[in-house]
Amino acid sequence: MNTDTLTVRAEVTLDVVLRYLRALGEIPTNTDSLMVTSRNNTYIGLLPLSTLLTSDTELTVGDVMTRETEFIKADMEDNDVAKIFETHDLLSAPVVDKDMKLLGRITIDDVVDVIRDEGDHNVLSMAGLNEDEDLFAPVVPSTRRRAVWLGINLITAFMASWVVSNFEGTLEKVVAIAVLMNVVASMGGIAGTQTLTLVIRGLALGQVSRSNKHWLLTKEIIVGLLNGFGWALVIAFTTAFWFNDIKIGLVIAAAIIINLFVAAFSGVAIPLIMRKANIDPAIAGSVVLTTITDIVGLAAFLGLATIFLI
Amino acid sequence: MNTDTLTVRAEVTLDVVLRYLRALGEIPTNTDSLMVTSRNNTYIGLLPLSTLLTSDTELTVGDVMTRETEFIKADMEDNDVAKIFETHDLLSAPVVDKDMKLLGRITIDDVVDVIRDEGDHNVLSMAGLNEDEDLFAPVVPSTRRRAVWLGINLITAFMASWVVSNFEGTLEKVVAIAVLMNVVASMGGIAGTQTLTLVIRGLALGQVSRSNKHWLLTKEIIVGLLNGFGWALVIAFTTAFWFNDIKIGLVIAAAIIINLFVAAFSGVAIPLIMRKANIDPAIAGSVVLTTITDIVGLAAFLGLATIFLI
Repeated sequence: MNTDTLTVRAEVTLDVVLRYLRALGEIPTNTDSLMVTSRNNTYIGLLPLSTLLTSDTELTVGDVMTRETEFIKADMEDNDVAKIFETHDLLSAPVVDKDMKLLGRITIDDVVDVIRDEGDHNVLSMAGLNEDEDLFAPVVPSTRRRAVWLGINLITAFMASWVVSNFEGTLEKVVAIAVLMNVVASMGGIAGTQTLTLVIRGLALGQVSRSNKHWLLTKEIIVGLLNGFGWALVIAFTTAFWFNDIKIGLVIAAAIIINLFVAAFSGVAIPLIMRKANIDPAIAGSVVLTTITDIVGLAAFLGLATIFLI
Repeated sequence: MNTDTLTVRAEVTLDVVLRYLRALGEIPTNTDSLMVTSRNNTYIGLLPLSTLLTSDTELTVGDVMTRETEFIKADMEDNDVAKIFETHDLLSAPVVDKDMKLLGRITIDDVVDVIRDEGDHNVLSMAGLNEDEDLFAPVVPSTRRRAVWLGINLITAFMASWVVSNFEGTLEKVVAIAVLMNVVASMGGIAGTQTLTLVIRGLALGQVSRSNKHWLLTKEIIVGLLNGFGWALVIAFTTAFWFNDIKIGLVIAAAIIINLFVAAFSGVAIPLIMRKANIDPAIAGSVVLTTITDIVGLAAFLGLATIFLI
């Protein structure tokens, strides 16, 4: 927030304002409007410089000022401020306290930084990094920061391993299962991440609401099933041909369809649940999702293989 | 670009400009400066509204205008325009052709959209989506767009499966290998993605240059090796205890160290190589990297297991 704000009273004429500015000799950078306040510093409205320059100088500030302007409450979140600026194409906006007393102004250059940081945050979060992460930081802090995410990933990888270990008998008998199981897990992870990314963005842009979330869930599940059936067909043919065994093709196809269904459901549900629990889905969403798709994909494929191939 | 630009001549007095604006009765939105041009429409400089309001009205535009202002060439890339706005905290800038003829102006609200799109692009690219991707698009286009990335992923997953299939003999004899192999692949993928994300951001911000790229590669390899040795120790103990076999612990530890070394190297090298080849690393980097870490991780683990455990 800038506190170098020029304020004027509603009852003075534009001619007085013009003479005041000329006497001042300087206007704070990125000023596009003067703030109009009452005697006790309550915010009333804005006098855009363009209005000042184009109106009759005999008129008073009160005659020409803009009253219904957007203003920023002092306790508003950065992202909400950015949204107001974007929606109304503002260059600057007044900041007021709860009694509407003028505290200062926020200018667009601060908002640009917020938007830039938000984009950064989302990209870095997906790799388990935080905004302070610096490519040029010394080795030790870099190692320590990145170790955290590797540790979390290790736990989920061991969970997937534990699932696989329950099917040791099947793996010993049909070695093709071990060869193919990563295909099921990875297709689910990719499909789920696509849905997750879009839902997280939709939430950030305020597009996802109570009224459309069921529609969204249905749509994503249909997309997941369509891609599931389509790619299941390709995978079934490829593996049946590769291992010269139609049954293994059918088993992997069923596992793919199940996993892409679960991926679509999780991709919508995880960010919605995390938002309710006040967890940032940009950070935690991806690891939870891939854990689910790994475990479901492996359990479905190995389970079906145990039933139908042995 | 806006073409509703107010231009004035350098030789007129501010008083004339003020009377001209008042006669006009309106100034285009987001105008913070008037453009100063010569008789043949060549751009000369800017007259900020704040200067117009605070200077002696007897002076000419040429006396008070700002000459050394940033301007935008008509063929400049969006991202470079955004960078100029951010560096100089501009609200608007003139757009000129190659002969310095004034074509119009770009205002900060357009730049905000570019920055927002850039952040979006990076986030969506990592999930294999493009900027046009819409959460609320109909089912068929959504399915088709996402299918492409799933297909690419399927090819890489089958490549990993092919690597595994070369070790069928080992998998039949030591089933623990099938249980654990995903841990090696996934740790490499995570570590590599962290490095990749930071290098892509560093490139976008212009932080990575010819002079520091060797330093960067060395640093990332040291970070990769430190995390490799650290987590290898944890994994070695866990698996040795789980399968009651020290040799399997040592083999997986060695594979983890190799894969995290390769992940760090690839995380730096892939975006640098892609940039040279004019490929956007935000889109293609992640899939190439995880293909490498999957194949190297699986080959290292299964290869070492074949040598030392059979």
